[in-house]
Amino acid sequence: MKLQVLAERLGCRLEGDGALDIERVAGIEKAGPSDLTFFANTKYAAALRATRAGAVILGERAEAAPCAMLRTANPYFAFAKAMEIFADPWTPPAGVHARALVGAGCDIAVDASIGAYAVIGDGVRIGARTIVHPQVVIGRHAIVGDDCVIHARVSIRERVALGSRVVVQDGAVIGSDGYGFARDADGGHYKIPQVGDVVIEDDVEIGANTTIDRPAVGETRIGAGAKIDNLVQIAHGVSVGRRSLLAAQVGIAGSTTLEESVTLAGQVGVAGHLTIGKGTVATAQTGIPNSVEPGSLISGYPAIDNRDWLKASAVFKKLPQLRRTLADLERRLAELEARAGLRDEH
Amino acid sequence: MKLQVLAERLGCRLEGDGALDIERVAGIEKAGPSDLTFFANTKYAAALRATRAGAVILGERAEAAPCAMLRTANPYFAFAKAMEIFADPWTPPAGVHARALVGAGCDIAVDASIGAYAVIGDGVRIGARTIVHPQVVIGRHAIVGDDCVIHARVSIRERVALGSRVVVQDGAVIGSDGYGFARDADGGHYKIPQVGDVVIEDDVEIGANTTIDRPAVGETRIGAGAKIDNLVQIAHGVSVGRRSLLAAQVGIAGSTTLEESVTLAGQVGVAGHLTIGKGTVATAQTGIPNSVEPGSLISGYPAIDNRDWLKASAVFKKLPQLRRTLADLERRLAELEARAGLRDEH
Amino acid sequence: MKLQVLAERLGCRLEGDGALDIERVAGIEKAGPSDLTFFANTKYAAALRATRAGAVILGERAEAAPCAMLRTANPYFAFAKAMEIFADPWTPPAGVHARALVGAGCDIAVDASIGAYAVIGDGVRIGARTIVHPQVVIGRHAIVGDDCVIHARVSIRERVALGSRVVVQDGAVIGSDGYGFARDADGGHYKIPQVGDVVIEDDVEIGANTTIDRPAVGETRIGAGAKIDNLVQIAHGVSVGRRSLLAAQVGIAGSTTLEESVTLAGQVGVAGHLTIGKGTVATAQTGIPNSVEPGSLISGYPAIDNRDWLKASAVFKKLPQLRRTLADLERRLAELEARAGLRDEH
Repeated sequence: MKLQVLAERLGCRLEGDGALDIERVAGIEKAGPSDLTFFANTKYAAALRATRAGAVILGERAEAAPCAMLRTANPYFAFAKAMEIFADPWTPPAGVHARALVGAGCDIAVDASIGAYAVIGDGVRIGARTIVHPQVVIGRHAIVGDDCVIHARVSIRERVALGSRVVVQDGAVIGSDGYGFARDADGGHYKIPQVGDVVIEDDVEIGANTTIDRPAVGETRIGAGAKIDNLVQIAHGVSVGRRSLLAAQVGIAGSTTLEESVTLAGQVGVAGHLTIGKGTVATAQTGIPNSVEPGSLISGYPAIDNRDWLKASAVFKKLPQLRRTLADLERRLAELEARAGLRDEH
Repeated sequence: MKLQVLAERLGCRLEGDGALDIERVAGIEKAGPSDLTFFANTKYAAALRATRAGAVILGERAEAAPCAMLRTANPYFAFAKAMEIFADPWTPPAGVHARALVGAGCDIAVDASIGAYAVIGDGVRIGARTIVHPQVVIGRHAIVGDDCVIHARVSIRERVALGSRVVVQDGAVIGSDGYGFARDADGGHYKIPQVGDVVIEDDVEIGANTTIDRPAVGETRIGAGAKIDNLVQIAHGVSVGRRSLLAAQVGIAGSTTLEESVTLAGQVGVAGHLTIGKGTVATAQTGIPNSVEPGSLISGYPAIDNRDWLKASAVFKKLPQLRRTLADLERRLAELEARAGLRDEH
Repeated sequence: MKLQVLAERLGCRLEGDGALDIERVAGIEKAGPSDLTFFANTKYAAALRATRAGAVILGERAEAAPCAMLRTANPYFAFAKAMEIFADPWTPPAGVHARALVGAGCDIAVDASIGAYAVIGDGVRIGARTIVHPQVVIGRHAIVGDDCVIHARVSIRERVALGSRVVVQDGAVIGSDGYGFARDADGGHYKIPQVGDVVIEDDVEIGANTTIDRPAVGETRIGAGAKIDNLVQIAHGVSVGRRSLLAAQVGIAGSTTLEESVTLAGQVGVAGHLTIGKGTVATAQTGIPNSVEPGSLISGYPAIDNRDWLKASAVFKKLPQLRRTLADLERRLAELEARAGLRDEH
């Protein structure tokens, strides 16, 4: 594609040779003369100067690059759009595969695609243009909206409801039984039937092998536009606010609410029955035992303000030295006290 | 169902109108006039006072609610029983699905249900009333007891043995190869065949996408009544004591033994070759590098007594202030010493 | 098998009765008179003295055992070889199962085995003697080398390339979409198509339910001989050096490079865009926010030198006492100052 055409399609301002043929998008260090690359992270400033790319997407005020430039206010977004243009357009054919199994009373859009060995329970609804890859299992009376992509080997359990444009990566489980047991008279753990609802709103993405449990009563809900990475655990009755971002291996215990636009970095854990305020950001591995005010930036275990945590962590590694200093002061003080006749000299 | 009938079936003492028709069980905040709810966590005392439920299950000494009441010594257990009464009774039909595959020499109970695209290896035994959902893979000579529920897309590898009333959520893997390698002469890691046993005793529940490895020799064992949440890792040769509770994303390294009734909260990690004493409780994200005495309550990384950890954590965030105080004392002490002629004034 | 024959096959020096019949390999505590066991961890010295095994593999200089001995410089490696000799030789038959589905233009070795309900996309290549277990899904134009074992219910996504002798445990996902989104003008998260490559080199093992993402551009690469345990998360664009060892539940964020022979113990987390130097070892639950020099031994969160961390952790639990000591010194110092007329007495 001519760079000029690409610039127009991406809404970028072209600086350089619009006649250049672009064949693909590539990383800044690997890109060659017929590649388009992008510059959105200042960490890669040296790489930008050295790039052999044919053209680069970059910000309006970024330093000039040694190649043609596509300038825009939001280079990362333009990069996403460029990726779309060059991505393999293949999709599986519409229709139900001869080796898929569809239950009674289902309502499957004619332009939806149901892959081989998928098992669709009774009364399931699947929306327009939705792609269900091979070996997905969808339980009775579940609903999947329009334009969803359900990758291979996903479980969508009975009565789970997905909105539109939801993407679910391979192996994810939506609607498994919550971890709910009542202590019986004998001291054992008696299973509480987990038959509540799970609602996944529009534009959500759910990562590979992530698990989202259903509650006994009420619902587990993932708000519109939330993006959940791989191997994340969402327990029964959790509510994840719209546009929240949950990185890989995050775990959220039962009945906790994340308000809108909460960001949890990798391996963060959140205890049950809490409210995490709107816009809260928790850095990687943070452990959150209590509710958090909106707009917080927190770290550590137990979680505290990020700035306090950074400062305390800097002191932490000097603790042995602090202890020695303290012991030294104590000795010197005792000596002074003895001089002053306040205490016996040792 | 009439509330009077429900009270009798649940063994609760009725206070209020036994003629009330109850249609379902609902959460305390969402319940309406034809709903039964429950009160078992004092956190929800205000919600109890405000509930619009038709009836509530609650403790013998709980404050009176603004609706009919079912009183019992164990409200959470009565709630579990009520959930059973109202749960969807649907189960898949008995028999082997036409699109399942069953190997040679299997012994599958006539009232067991084997779902579509399940693959059952040679010599497998499956007990009475057990439900194997679609796309489960069961390896050669594995045994599954009576009244088990194996949800979709579970792997039960060769020679694994499950007791009765075991529930396995979607995507769990039981009997995968343990992570065992021997350093070879060349510095590489040589795979040690992992062909030992995995035994899952009666009444165990295993969460979605949880993994339980088999050892090279000996066995991995999950004791009766243990409940394991989602995304938990049980390494080769681990023994989990009966009635233990492992919350989501817990990891237990090889050859470690948990004694009876150990509780590990979310994201806890336990090193290998340890013994965790009976009744030990570890709070969320605890890292356990050493064996633990029975009855311990531990926290932190490395794990220490929970009370000590709470106190030390409270000081942790004040470390920068402590360091400043220490520097101040040092300066003042030096001044006093100089006065006393003990040290030179700076 | 006669012990004499076994000694020869394992390249061990026999001390004892070579006519002994060995039937299997067993753990040191469970082994009986016709079992071979091994001793490679000094923790089990008492068990060695008490063993009832018929024979034991042990080091050249290990204490004598109360049974026949197979001595070798590398007992753990000899144990691995012994396990191979006694392991069940069963493998699934070669050929494509009648209930598997193979796409157009595939090149599947005649002696490869493709299991029931496996779905192989168009243009896939599968090498000699490779075993693909039931319900594996392999995407279009993926490549699997020779002598691989792909266990049941694995996803190998489109265009992923596996080398030879790669072992993938059940439920693992290779090539799922990386977690990449661009903020759009509206504040939402716009999906960046993740269409880059994933390369798994020779002799890699990938654990059960582990997830390895593909990037938007460039590649995710797992170096030759790396061994990855269960439930590990490898984000888009990560490079794992050859012979690295990643224990269970490790998470590595996007674009990070592990150099050769890095060892990450269980639940370690590594932030994105870092370089972890050759031979680095991180102990369990370590959180790594910055690049690490080769040969480091690190612990803690944020990660510091292991020795410093051990010392600081030992002081951590005494923080309440330290604070009390500090307050006491402050009081005593004020008293001295007052005496010296430097400060007012309180």
